[in-house]
Amino acid sequence: MSLITLTTDFGTKDHFVGAVKGAIYSELPDAKIVDITHHISPFSITETAYILKNTYKSFPKGTIHIIGVDSELSIENKHIALILDEHYFICPDNGLISMIASEVNPTRIFEINIHDRIESSFPVLDIFVKVATHIARGGSLSVIGKEIQSYKKTIEIQPKVNQAQTIISGGVIYIDNYGNVITNISKKIFNEIGKGRDFKITARRYTFDKILNKYNEIVNFDSNDIRQFDGNKLALFNSAGFIEIAIYRSNLKTVGGASSLLGLDYRDTVTVEFFNELKPEFTTLN
Amino acid sequence: MSLITLTTDFGTKDHFVGAVKGAIYSELPDAKIVDITHHISPFSITETAYILKNTYKSFPKGTIHIIGVDSELSIENKHIALILDEHYFICPDNGLISMIASEVNPTRIFEINIHDRIESSFPVLDIFVKVATHIARGGSLSVIGKEIQSYKKTIEIQPKVNQAQTIISGGVIYIDNYGNVITNISKKIFNEIGKGRDFKITARRYTFDKILNKYNEIVNFDSNDIRQFDGNKLALFNSAGFIEIAIYRSNLKTVGGASSLLGLDYRDTVTVEFFNELKPEFTTLN
Amino acid sequence: MSLITLTTDFGTKDHFVGAVKGAIYSELPDAKIVDITHHISPFSITETAYILKNTYKSFPKGTIHIIGVDSELSIENKHIALILDEHYFICPDNGLISMIASEVNPTRIFEINIHDRIESSFPVLDIFVKVATHIARGGSLSVIGKEIQSYKKTIEIQPKVNQAQTIISGGVIYIDNYGNVITNISKKIFNEIGKGRDFKITARRYTFDKILNKYNEIVNFDSNDIRQFDGNKLALFNSAGFIEIAIYRSNLKTVGGASSLLGLDYRDTVTVEFFNELKPEFTTLN
Repeated sequence: MSLITLTTDFGTKDHFVGAVKGAIYSELPDAKIVDITHHISPFSITETAYILKNTYKSFPKGTIHIIGVDSELSIENKHIALILDEHYFICPDNGLISMIASEVNPTRIFEINIHDRIESSFPVLDIFVKVATHIARGGSLSVIGKEIQSYKKTIEIQPKVNQAQTIISGGVIYIDNYGNVITNISKKIFNEIGKGRDFKITARRYTFDKILNKYNEIVNFDSNDIRQFDGNKLALFNSAGFIEIAIYRSNLKTVGGASSLLGLDYRDTVTVEFFNELKPEFTTLN
Repeated sequence: MSLITLTTDFGTKDHFVGAVKGAIYSELPDAKIVDITHHISPFSITETAYILKNTYKSFPKGTIHIIGVDSELSIENKHIALILDEHYFICPDNGLISMIASEVNPTRIFEINIHDRIESSFPVLDIFVKVATHIARGGSLSVIGKEIQSYKKTIEIQPKVNQAQTIISGGVIYIDNYGNVITNISKKIFNEIGKGRDFKITARRYTFDKILNKYNEIVNFDSNDIRQFDGNKLALFNSAGFIEIAIYRSNLKTVGGASSLLGLDYRDTVTVEFFNELKPEFTTLN
Repeated sequence: MSLITLTTDFGTKDHFVGAVKGAIYSELPDAKIVDITHHISPFSITETAYILKNTYKSFPKGTIHIIGVDSELSIENKHIALILDEHYFICPDNGLISMIASEVNPTRIFEINIHDRIESSFPVLDIFVKVATHIARGGSLSVIGKEIQSYKKTIEIQPKVNQAQTIISGGVIYIDNYGNVITNISKKIFNEIGKGRDFKITARRYTFDKILNKYNEIVNFDSNDIRQFDGNKLALFNSAGFIEIAIYRSNLKTVGGASSLLGLDYRDTVTVEFFNELKPEFTTLN
């Protein structure tokens, strides 16, 4: 039995996803197909990378991941299949992999070259499914492509640290289903630079001097009315390991979430400033 | 083979659902995972209960239901696993179960206590999956928790009946995909109180004196143009057994559904008035 | 193992889809259920036909397709099960099949008649699942219905060709996830009528004199900045074989897609005018 995941910007209304699944089952009747998401914003490599990075590791080794985002073939956008962290990825060579693989390197990369046999305007259906089912049947990657040594690198927008090591300057990389705002500042870099110093996080005109590990750490459970904490803003290390600005128990469709209530959007700046020993005067004056 | 269902407020864009499925397959390669829904309004226990109550019974006995809505662990919100109607439920102890189990009582309830072994800010992934796969492998609930006798009760908003038994006063509990408005007045209570008397249903400034059993009972098929009935409002006993206010063949995204056209929203009041023998004068005057 | 697909207008929030899947697994534990879509616009037969026509063929022969759109039983809307192109379809007899089967005819058609045994206000759950699992177990269609010779025909809106064979007059039949506008003018009719002549496509105040085979044929890859082509409008033969008006790399939710940017909507007119030998003066004057 083979596990094949799908991550696309196809949406779930059109015929695209159904056609791809039908083609996989036609080739491989006992496949298990898992939708990671079909709601990537059209052509967004950043979103695709954020979601896959936080998903693929929970699947068993050997899982085959098909990525159908910005996958039209061109001389600028080849198709590749590769092995990364003992998982298979089939995707366009558009920089995506360098954002997923920022900590691990692919062990083998193949440029898919079965296109001369298949004329296609729907490559996920015609090419990626062929490659995925070939791999699932135990086929060698060298049959469907030619091994290459490098792939397109896109430097994921990384937070910057000033020379004095007092400021991390990052940005918003993702807004989630609750309207929570996820930054590119990881717990790892925060700890390495901060070394336990006091700090102030600034996102637009809002500041935070604490980072929670769970949303409900903001609640005082001794209080008579714990619901009074609903709607409070907070910063936390989210389950993916990044600083997140959230509204406790927010609802994006009714009262709004952190993104709408605090006016924070994709690519907005978020900074962390660390204080040496004492907080500087200007922060205590106010 | 084990059937595991997922009911969450995670949405289908973020990495949450994919990560949970990957973790289940990693533990239990031959699991069958069924999405009930991931579009519960954030933190809404009422919606979760309405959907699960109308879904779980169609699954085979022994199915394991994971509920990821408002599941962050706190001293006010424990995690429980229980057996209800020969189905397994893994969920927070936030009152949800009392709304699902209004007619049946859980036979055994366990407070999950494996948290001391697992530090987590994503309990559905780290705790609920562990418990579900443990159950699926035939494991005993006493290994993952300690048996308890009671769980948090939330009285689902029940319709009220006046002393004279002439008025049922209920409310809107759910708006569905077509914009249809579902009340908490069941066919059962309607029949028990009404005993066949004439009646008038009032929802805002609209009234109904008939309850259909199928939407198209509103149509006169002898008519030349049956499409003229599109857009008519009606009251019916829906397939879940509740009084529903609907617009025949409505489209919420274009012309609107009952919720938008009649201005009916979640928690609005809907009443049924029963008449003794003759309808009172004021209803015949108009 | 049986493959059963679902195409409905139920949406993915309500209990409908979960209940149907539970019922299938209760009857047939090893079924494979594939969601084609649950996001058909309420009651839209045209959308259902477009999506199914472009999906079902990629599934293996013998797949069972349940269609839950406009499926309430009435004297005007019977339920049928049929074999088409070696696939099974279970659906209302509302004209849908004639739009799917415009090129192939069903080999056998049965009017489902198990309703007298089952009283239902949710026929997909109570009737269609019964029929699907009966077929999946190898049961004969004659057990669940009576063979009939014809089904309701709805002439899918077909493009018209003038007597001089110079103009194809078609219309918009679908708007996809990217806001791309799909017409009912197929590559086949375009080639048959056009016979290689020059042409002009007109959609509102926009014209096109080229039809691409891939979106990125609009890009000049020798250019320094290939991103300058983002947002350009184009006409192409899409992967389903129809003329499509698109915006290169559009995003319907941010800057908009062809539908919103060019003001094109479902049922709007799109025409192709062919020129004999030389383009007429008026086109060269401008």
